[in-house]
Amino acid sequence: MAYAVKALWICAKAYSSSANLGPGFDVLALAHDAYYDIVCVRETEGFKVSKVTGGWNVPKENNNAIVVAKLASEKLGIKGVDIWVHKGVPPGRGLGSSGATAAAAVKAIELLAGRALSYEEAVSIAAEGERAVSGTPHADNVAASYLGGLVAVTYSPFKVVKFGLPKINLVVATPWIDVPPSKTGEARKVLPQLVELKDAVQLIGGTALVIKSLIESDLELLGKAVMMDNVITPRRKKLIPCYDKVLEAVLSSGAYGMTISGAGPSVLIIGNERSGEAAVRAWNECGIEASFKVVKAAPGARAHPPP
Amino acid sequence: MAYAVKALWICAKAYSSSANLGPGFDVLALAHDAYYDIVCVRETEGFKVSKVTGGWNVPKENNNAIVVAKLASEKLGIKGVDIWVHKGVPPGRGLGSSGATAAAAVKAIELLAGRALSYEEAVSIAAEGERAVSGTPHADNVAASYLGGLVAVTYSPFKVVKFGLPKINLVVATPWIDVPPSKTGEARKVLPQLVELKDAVQLIGGTALVIKSLIESDLELLGKAVMMDNVITPRRKKLIPCYDKVLEAVLSSGAYGMTISGAGPSVLIIGNERSGEAAVRAWNECGIEASFKVVKAAPGARAHPPP
Repeated sequence: MAYAVKALWICAKAYSSSANLGPGFDVLALAHDAYYDIVCVRETEGFKVSKVTGGWNVPKENNNAIVVAKLASEKLGIKGVDIWVHKGVPPGRGLGSSGATAAAAVKAIELLAGRALSYEEAVSIAAEGERAVSGTPHADNVAASYLGGLVAVTYSPFKVVKFGLPKINLVVATPWIDVPPSKTGEARKVLPQLVELKDAVQLIGGTALVIKSLIESDLELLGKAVMMDNVITPRRKKLIPCYDKVLEAVLSSGAYGMTISGAGPSVLIIGNERSGEAAVRAWNECGIEASFKVVKAAPGARAHPPP
Repeated sequence: MAYAVKALWICAKAYSSSANLGPGFDVLALAHDAYYDIVCVRETEGFKVSKVTGGWNVPKENNNAIVVAKLASEKLGIKGVDIWVHKGVPPGRGLGSSGATAAAAVKAIELLAGRALSYEEAVSIAAEGERAVSGTPHADNVAASYLGGLVAVTYSPFKVVKFGLPKINLVVATPWIDVPPSKTGEARKVLPQLVELKDAVQLIGGTALVIKSLIESDLELLGKAVMMDNVITPRRKKLIPCYDKVLEAVLSSGAYGMTISGAGPSVLIIGNERSGEAAVRAWNECGIEASFKVVKAAPGARAHPPP
């Protein structure tokens, strides 16, 4: 006699993240507990997203969780999974939304298989999910969401390293402006192809200081370090309404510094609740709705009960 | 009754260093125990170098130790010192020779005054000694010699940070070719004013990996990381005879990587004695005398008995 037993959902949680951190363009990212996604899987034939819940509506078709689950399953000998995406990270805000889904999807498959991939395998698979969303397999957000804390990624050679989990509070502030679906692509178009060598040296030095300050949980140094980018931020800030007004308000509130979170429009503030309030007020004065969260550095993707 | 008491020499020792470490151009430097300088001071009127000893003949006039001792003395309320430079670091080899003198000179004045300067004060004073030698106040070598271990320096804002003392053995190999007195200047002339953004990203990522690998004393990763510079090394290696042959020999010997030490012509090899022998043999086959040393990361400038 045969029983049809419905498989249980196996779920993983992965947090939002801020890529770049100023000078660490396309290399550094920090996972934080502003938001999180949960991705659940259960074994079946083929790969599909059958359920989307949470605060954000994302499509079941062409969901990056499918790409990621499929690649991870191939590595780990799983034939197929039914996927449930519980979406907590707002998409299109520079908070690593698709990266959180991708990281949670890889981890869920690992949990189902009872076997972990290497950092590089897991992150490169999750990065393929980014390619499905943005056209390029960026790995900074997925690396942060997958590993937690401060990470660095390089592509030639492909390497993923983690610098640990800083003991800090920061602020993530988000303007709720309309963003085009191709936002990340637009944010790349404003960047120059060439930079002065002395500006590259400034980025190299700033990156070293961001790493040092996060290793030491030194907020004052971190504030200075994230502001050292004189290549990316000056151009991308033009895509974020009232950026300079928000920056001024935030610094006046006593914050140590501020930079764009990923491709924006969210910002990462090296400050406290008062700085978050100042940012929201400044955006409101520009006629823009905004909100903020005080965040901690978040751990990597991990098992979680179904939502 | 008055006694004329000859003041005792107060001495400090500071080690050689390798700046850049591949992608960390003008930012990173590592102090190592390949060579060291000792600088001694005793209180008197005015500032002069009265004695030069050691393996290398440097001029008493216009010696960078005078510039540095004067600035440090002004900060610390000392009227004048007689200076003795004991020169162990070979000049003009990319091993931070003038930086070691400058770092030892600052530390000797601090010891005489019985009071330490802040990192930034000490290093910026020592960097003025570099200006006296090379025309620009570079702080990478002086920061490494003064603080020890792996350091990063930035100029805007001026910051000096230390990442600790890696537990590693590396190899420094030096070709004894004639170098022009303006070598560091020449080595800057071959650099481009503009670099591609993607190459800047490669330098940013490589810098993060160099830091990570030295924090973790991970030689394999360090070897990969120092080779990630695709901007500076490809141009400067042309100033070093037989660089590519030496690199090939070193990698064939099992080394993890190699890069130029500072502006060259010395190289820093992520390998062991066999790699050093391979480098020397390759240079010899090009008709160039060369030597190597197996080195450890060195501590910062410190008190030392007179030589």
